[in-house]
Amino acid sequence: MAAARQVYIAIIGAGGVGKCFLSQLEQLARHRPNPELVLSYITTSKKAVYSSDYSPISFDSALSTLASSSQAPLEPLKLAEFLSASGSKAILVDNTSSQHVAEAYPLFLSRGISIVTPNKKAFSGSYKLWQDIFSASEQSGALVYHESSVGAGLPVISTLKDLVDTGDEVIKIEGVFSGTMSFLFNSFAPTSGSGSKWSAEVKKAKELGYTEPDPRDDLNGLDVARKLTILARLAGLPVESPTSFPVKSLIPKELESVASGDEFLEKLPEFDDQMEETKVAAEREGKVVRFVGSIDVATKQVKVGIEWFDRSHPIASLKGSDNIISFYTKRYGSNPLIIQGAGAGGEVTAMGVTSDLLKVLAQL
Amino acid sequence: MAAARQVYIAIIGAGGVGKCFLSQLEQLARHRPNPELVLSYITTSKKAVYSSDYSPISFDSALSTLASSSQAPLEPLKLAEFLSASGSKAILVDNTSSQHVAEAYPLFLSRGISIVTPNKKAFSGSYKLWQDIFSASEQSGALVYHESSVGAGLPVISTLKDLVDTGDEVIKIEGVFSGTMSFLFNSFAPTSGSGSKWSAEVKKAKELGYTEPDPRDDLNGLDVARKLTILARLAGLPVESPTSFPVKSLIPKELESVASGDEFLEKLPEFDDQMEETKVAAEREGKVVRFVGSIDVATKQVKVGIEWFDRSHPIASLKGSDNIISFYTKRYGSNPLIIQGAGAGGEVTAMGVTSDLLKVLAQL
Repeated sequence: MAAARQVYIAIIGAGGVGKCFLSQLEQLARHRPNPELVLSYITTSKKAVYSSDYSPISFDSALSTLASSSQAPLEPLKLAEFLSASGSKAILVDNTSSQHVAEAYPLFLSRGISIVTPNKKAFSGSYKLWQDIFSASEQSGALVYHESSVGAGLPVISTLKDLVDTGDEVIKIEGVFSGTMSFLFNSFAPTSGSGSKWSAEVKKAKELGYTEPDPRDDLNGLDVARKLTILARLAGLPVESPTSFPVKSLIPKELESVASGDEFLEKLPEFDDQMEETKVAAEREGKVVRFVGSIDVATKQVKVGIEWFDRSHPIASLKGSDNIISFYTKRYGSNPLIIQGAGAGGEVTAMGVTSDLLKVLAQL
Repeated sequence: MAAARQVYIAIIGAGGVGKCFLSQLEQLARHRPNPELVLSYITTSKKAVYSSDYSPISFDSALSTLASSSQAPLEPLKLAEFLSASGSKAILVDNTSSQHVAEAYPLFLSRGISIVTPNKKAFSGSYKLWQDIFSASEQSGALVYHESSVGAGLPVISTLKDLVDTGDEVIKIEGVFSGTMSFLFNSFAPTSGSGSKWSAEVKKAKELGYTEPDPRDDLNGLDVARKLTILARLAGLPVESPTSFPVKSLIPKELESVASGDEFLEKLPEFDDQMEETKVAAEREGKVVRFVGSIDVATKQVKVGIEWFDRSHPIASLKGSDNIISFYTKRYGSNPLIIQGAGAGGEVTAMGVTSDLLKVLAQL
């Protein structure tokens, strides 16, 4: 038998998703000898591990080696040179949410380095960056996969691509794209029983770890807007940026500039009446409120905000912090293709990255 | 620029799915010049079109050329020889539900010919055929994709593979796997209002074209059993055949051997009480009956039959003839990953075949 081919893996980021990914990668490398996966670079924002002769970093001890390392991370250009000089095929795994790393994707791709990542920034930033990424990929043949940039490991991006690539006509995409918003609204306006006050739900969500350290980073709607930007572009709409369409922020104007998340939470109860009114208005018509994003491909309208749904609607009856994404297309007619499940969390996000890695490996 | 590579496509079957596939393929070939897709063989069960010098068959006129052809189809061995003698990469698209063609998959694969197909027979027949198919594929490197064998174009097989390949632990798979059964039970036991008698629903489903010409071919549960066999095997259970686990048939014993589907429909009302009792028993507990399949991976139990669900359960609130498939896994915890939508129909079934073809093309 021929010797196993080698593929070099470079990982940026060793936080929650990065750690889960590393453990999935270790399992993968153990079960699939061909191609041989060689971890040749790993870095946090402060420290890195690599050697000039590309000697493999052990998957098992990568994190501890990283913790005790005195090497500094390579700047993107240096890292691209380091990887392309090896002569082996290389895959960059970006497990950060860094804009700086995202902006270097065209550089990596143009050097023949494929990319897998859950990082939304690259695909939801300026439309120019999006174009640069995909034209670099097309020219060099290097691949770029980003399943976990929307709905974590749920097969959202791959399904949309399959619909488009096989010639279906996407009419509308609608759903709940944020685990935090899902949890908040499912508790605040449940389909049976009645929820607490809005501010109490936000406080509870924060205590349970469902929100960012400052809950305003969820409530501003930008995370959902970024995901919609990605899906809209994949559906063929040249959306300029996540701020180029209407996005409803749930941060009261008066609290936008308070100093801290804690102060925000303290003052939020003063504004409960606004959310209560919206909820009660919907209830009067037998409906519940949900925070949804939608893309109307025909009219080119993208928007993020609160909408009303019948209690029996799949979006209304969502549980916990689940996401739901409905694809209305010409072929699927009036009953959409629906994907539902956990859209956040280290393991399921890493799963999307790992399955992307497998898809790239199959094509290298 | 280098000349575009050529990939030879051979299609068996030009029925409902075959026609939709051909139209999707024609679009694809028009938009993707590389690799150049060359239709070099197409056949129904009676007639074929091909030429010894592999001259391309026009996508546009393939069906009319086929209709007026006097060539007979090649036997599998001859077809495999014809395709491998070309020296080009070749993909066999089997759009039939033929056992005969399915049994030749190991032969095609061993000759390096990749296969894409919605044909359930190959993957739900004997476990030996399953093993022969995948070991032939592994040895030759030829690929075999069959997304549309379960849930038509819904991303069911690809999602299950991703879960397994990335190291998730599948605990249970549960769902409604038949469009016909979905339609029948959604009408017979709706979540609000009350349905008609069972026999009337079966008659209506037949009139609307939702059943096979003889409705017993749906009501025997074998179609669902075949799909469960495929998913169970992908989840790691070596299920021997679709008849090696409990499958509830909805054909009353007394009507199993009546001569025709029409006679069956005529006599079915005599047995309405049985189904009515089941429905009423469920209603008394506030539930509805549904025809579901389930795979419990831990206990290795696979079964198909009638079960009761709360009205708010996603399986209960399914619409029309939609399928729903829930994957309970270690990573996804108590809220499953759910895929839902049309699981039958020419266009969506062909879509699964076309997207499989794209995946194979990317790896050739």
